[in-house]
Amino acid sequence: MTRIEDLPIRDELRGQSPYGAPQLDVAVRLNTNENPYPLPEALVARIAERVAEAARGLNRYPDRDAVELRTALAAYLSRTAGHRVGLAQVWAANGSNEIIQQLLQTFGGPGRRAIGFEPSYSMHALISRGTGTGWISGPRRADFTIDVAAAVREIAERRPEVVFVCSPNNPTGTAVAAETVVELYEAAQAARPCLVVVDEAYGEFSHRPSLLPLIEGRPHLVLTRTMSKAFGAAGLRLGYLAADPAVVDAVQIVRLPYHLSAVTQATALAALEYTDTLLGYVNQLKDERDRVVRELRATGYEVVDSDANFVQFGRFADSHTAWEAVLAHGVLVRDNGVPGWLRVSVGTPAENDAFLDAARAVFKEHSTKEHSTKEHRTTEEQV
Amino acid sequence: MTRIEDLPIRDELRGQSPYGAPQLDVAVRLNTNENPYPLPEALVARIAERVAEAARGLNRYPDRDAVELRTALAAYLSRTAGHRVGLAQVWAANGSNEIIQQLLQTFGGPGRRAIGFEPSYSMHALISRGTGTGWISGPRRADFTIDVAAAVREIAERRPEVVFVCSPNNPTGTAVAAETVVELYEAAQAARPCLVVVDEAYGEFSHRPSLLPLIEGRPHLVLTRTMSKAFGAAGLRLGYLAADPAVVDAVQIVRLPYHLSAVTQATALAALEYTDTLLGYVNQLKDERDRVVRELRATGYEVVDSDANFVQFGRFADSHTAWEAVLAHGVLVRDNGVPGWLRVSVGTPAENDAFLDAARAVFKEHSTKEHSTKEHRTTEEQV
Repeated sequence: MTRIEDLPIRDELRGQSPYGAPQLDVAVRLNTNENPYPLPEALVARIAERVAEAARGLNRYPDRDAVELRTALAAYLSRTAGHRVGLAQVWAANGSNEIIQQLLQTFGGPGRRAIGFEPSYSMHALISRGTGTGWISGPRRADFTIDVAAAVREIAERRPEVVFVCSPNNPTGTAVAAETVVELYEAAQAARPCLVVVDEAYGEFSHRPSLLPLIEGRPHLVLTRTMSKAFGAAGLRLGYLAADPAVVDAVQIVRLPYHLSAVTQATALAALEYTDTLLGYVNQLKDERDRVVRELRATGYEVVDSDANFVQFGRFADSHTAWEAVLAHGVLVRDNGVPGWLRVSVGTPAENDAFLDAARAVFKEHSTKEHSTKEHRTTEEQV
Repeated sequence: MTRIEDLPIRDELRGQSPYGAPQLDVAVRLNTNENPYPLPEALVARIAERVAEAARGLNRYPDRDAVELRTALAAYLSRTAGHRVGLAQVWAANGSNEIIQQLLQTFGGPGRRAIGFEPSYSMHALISRGTGTGWISGPRRADFTIDVAAAVREIAERRPEVVFVCSPNNPTGTAVAAETVVELYEAAQAARPCLVVVDEAYGEFSHRPSLLPLIEGRPHLVLTRTMSKAFGAAGLRLGYLAADPAVVDAVQIVRLPYHLSAVTQATALAALEYTDTLLGYVNQLKDERDRVVRELRATGYEVVDSDANFVQFGRFADSHTAWEAVLAHGVLVRDNGVPGWLRVSVGTPAENDAFLDAARAVFKEHSTKEHSTKEHRTTEEQV
């Protein structure tokens, strides 16, 4: 039998394994930040209708430029994110992972480097490596906020070509202030012309307004979004970006032709017709998120302020043992490799109740009051 | 206004433009090798049904490993391609372009080189460049077949890490003999451990049997396929590969997690249920293809033997002028940058009649009997 190691794969891939959250067959799964609310049945019917329409022309290649979909995404952003954008400023791909990959193929790649402030969304580092872009693990404060002075210093010293800012930050939960992004952007441009990518995958869940207005007058600032979370469509794989039209033009040099299928475009368009209904679920999730935070704190846990549909809580003497203890109560949460902390996705009220019961049950045995004030900087598996 | 050139994009992307066939609003479009037959209405209904089912769980991530789909693709290959394969030997992605990209990220990349025998499917070269893989333009004979001795010499000298063989070859049309692939495979392995990728995107249209059985005992041989052509589903973007299970494991290291959406998986599964109906259309297209070849030859054209759903015909004193002349008759064909030749996709009988009328009309003024016997080697735009 041939093994991977017997194949002429690239040296840096040797010994690596595919990325992905471990999946277990458990009653309450709160480990991948999915939206717990299935799409409403009327939307399911609308998707079937639009996909059938698309299927009648499926023998033809899809619209390579996804004009109708990008126009609808631009209208959605214009209405909800505090800044008017049009077709020329929006680009879409198969999940925000593909958006990030296209950005790194265009602005990163061999001989260039990207920086992220860790712990953060681990795909930023992984896709950097996958595209041959060097990765710099930037620091965070002990409370998981970005230490702007330290970050600016790091950028000035290391001079990366791409800077990632995740807001709200995954897996820790807190959104980044607009002033912080502006300071990082200016520091980055001072070092060299540099792309700053603001990953707003969880933007709709935030207490703060979107950072979209910052793209105005900043041609090297890109905002990325996804329909996976707020639109309850993780299965759809639809990510998008908003930026200066030149950035949208530039990524089209590296995108695979016809990358976005006609059925994906049709399904996303149907979901966008139901924006108000779906944002109603987002509001319910925000209330539940705030309840989970309150209850965890009342139990005695330390909880990082959350602007997302997940909550990072601790601290634990040993997060893996604590993860197992919660699992023993039938609830799957996520150990993102942040020592002392676990992450729970916000589910339905009943799922959150089950989680809170489990969290209370394990508190006494697993939590610790020993606080580290060390800054963070990690390259371990997250998300 | 910011222009692409003002952005800090990679130097090798400067001055490049996005790849894609020029599209014109013409009555008869025979330029992108699409299948002219829309999916039957019963299949459209089945797609709507399966997608609705998938949409009910769209808030969850899709099956990361696409197990049901890969199993169905393996069953299809086992039944139609002369060799039994299972789930472990099949991998699927968004179009065969993404398959090729994943293979090059795993086996190519910076510091490595790929070779193809040109003119051939131009995305092999483009995705090589997009992944930082060096590109070697290998030779073809004047009749567009692969000169095995010359190819083996080139491989021995240049020692590429990846070899592309397109069979049937796009844009020229002829399938490659199994013995040729075996000779190239052995030459490639003699130089260094080397991946050989046989691109069978048009395999179902060939007079020759599939090259799939060659993967047996050859762990570095990969066969790629697509549902775009034979399954009449260019809009679906579903490509796949068959190879040793170790290759399938290896590409999973570089694939983006959850790359294949739940709606894509559902639609592809529906189409596979209608395999026999769709292969019936393939048979009609093969008959029409043979008719187009016969009629073109009867008109006086030189025509490359075709095993595909397209035909390369010539010769023209100037292919671009000839392309324009055909277009003036309301028929859009493709100028793939092969001097003296044009490519026409096989359409419905009525479309083919319109094309043949146009071809007869332009023959006298544009064709030439001047034959070049030079070998080919081109990096110009194809497909």
